[in-house]
Amino acid sequence: MTGRPRDEQARNVILRRAADIASRNGLEGLSIGGLSGELGLSKSGLFGYFGSKEELQLATVRAAAQVFITEVVQPALSTPPGLERVWRLCESWLTYSQRRVFPGGCFFFTVAAEFEARPGRVRDAVAAAVLDWRRLVARTVEDARQLGQLIEVADAEQLAFELIAFMETANSVSLLHDEAVAYLRARTAIQARLRTLATDHTALPWALSSPVGDAPRTGRR
Amino acid sequence: MTGRPRDEQARNVILRRAADIASRNGLEGLSIGGLSGELGLSKSGLFGYFGSKEELQLATVRAAAQVFITEVVQPALSTPPGLERVWRLCESWLTYSQRRVFPGGCFFFTVAAEFEARPGRVRDAVAAAVLDWRRLVARTVEDARQLGQLIEVADAEQLAFELIAFMETANSVSLLHDEAVAYLRARTAIQARLRTLATDHTALPWALSSPVGDAPRTGRR
Repeated sequence: MTGRPRDEQARNVILRRAADIASRNGLEGLSIGGLSGELGLSKSGLFGYFGSKEELQLATVRAAAQVFITEVVQPALSTPPGLERVWRLCESWLTYSQRRVFPGGCFFFTVAAEFEARPGRVRDAVAAAVLDWRRLVARTVEDARQLGQLIEVADAEQLAFELIAFMETANSVSLLHDEAVAYLRARTAIQARLRTLATDHTALPWALSSPVGDAPRTGRR
Repeated sequence: MTGRPRDEQARNVILRRAADIASRNGLEGLSIGGLSGELGLSKSGLFGYFGSKEELQLATVRAAAQVFITEVVQPALSTPPGLERVWRLCESWLTYSQRRVFPGGCFFFTVAAEFEARPGRVRDAVAAAVLDWRRLVARTVEDARQLGQLIEVADAEQLAFELIAFMETANSVSLLHDEAVAYLRARTAIQARLRTLATDHTALPWALSSPVGDAPRTGRR
């Protein structure tokens, strides 16, 4: 399965397609039969790649995590640590959801809701990927605090919980109700939380490069 | 199907069980065959009640909405309009999720994530129920503002978005990572948002009857 480069390439194409399908229909919506039909491959050939539905599901979660890292994590990590990186991380997640990198919105939101109450290897893989993301957000917030850009008493875990809540709810509201305004609400909420906890309101990151055109505020509340 | 009271009662038992299953495995995880086996009923008898899988799914959504109204909406509406009702509504949702009224956490969170990218009658029914809830939260916040308990410039839609984000994320984090602390984070976040927007900090509702033991604050920030 790891063997020749051509196999590897074919495998990637299959898994990217599988992640797209799962973002809409869930990982239980994946089947080797359905996928082989859609990609014009033989069912036995696809079975040779993955062996079982569970292996296909696990490989799909890994492939989606790779897409997530490329689309969300890496762009944000090109910004130095601090409040600007916190904002870039949120912004990068929101545009990943909004651009529908996966047609069903955030892949992990859909499959986490699908597997959260179903113990097993798939749930463990999904939970581990989501936990990596939550820890990255909390770490990035804590870095900003340690750099003196957030007030001393700011609770990084609490703020990370709130930022993630705004992002995920924008994703689900926009999908369920076709409301683009949900992303604006999330950005407004994130900016307000960061504004409340920032030590220097004149240097807030979205004043420099805002995709929602939020005007710089005075810091007066 | 509407006919005799005994039929009605049997139908309710079936649908309550179906909602429990769907809260863990999704509405696609429901099948007339699986449900008949579990309830010890004949497949043809069950088919006589619902006719098709889609009808079973739609009836399950209606039954779950009834449970939601009884468990979350009605208790909160026994409190008069104002900030206290806003808090009771959030608290009532959080305990509904936390007590696992449905074993897979909030029924609507699971099935909304499942159907948000799948057009059709089931998605429409789920979206309508979720929209009713979102509107109720926004209306309750706006009532509190009109009563002068929230500052004049408070944006009811924005605050409702944020409160719902905290609640839903507590539900999903607690399910995926078995973390009870998520509910504490949601309560902390909700109280902080209401504290920021309240006109009279000495009359904040959780000071009267707090399940998280949050001490009354001075209102100084």
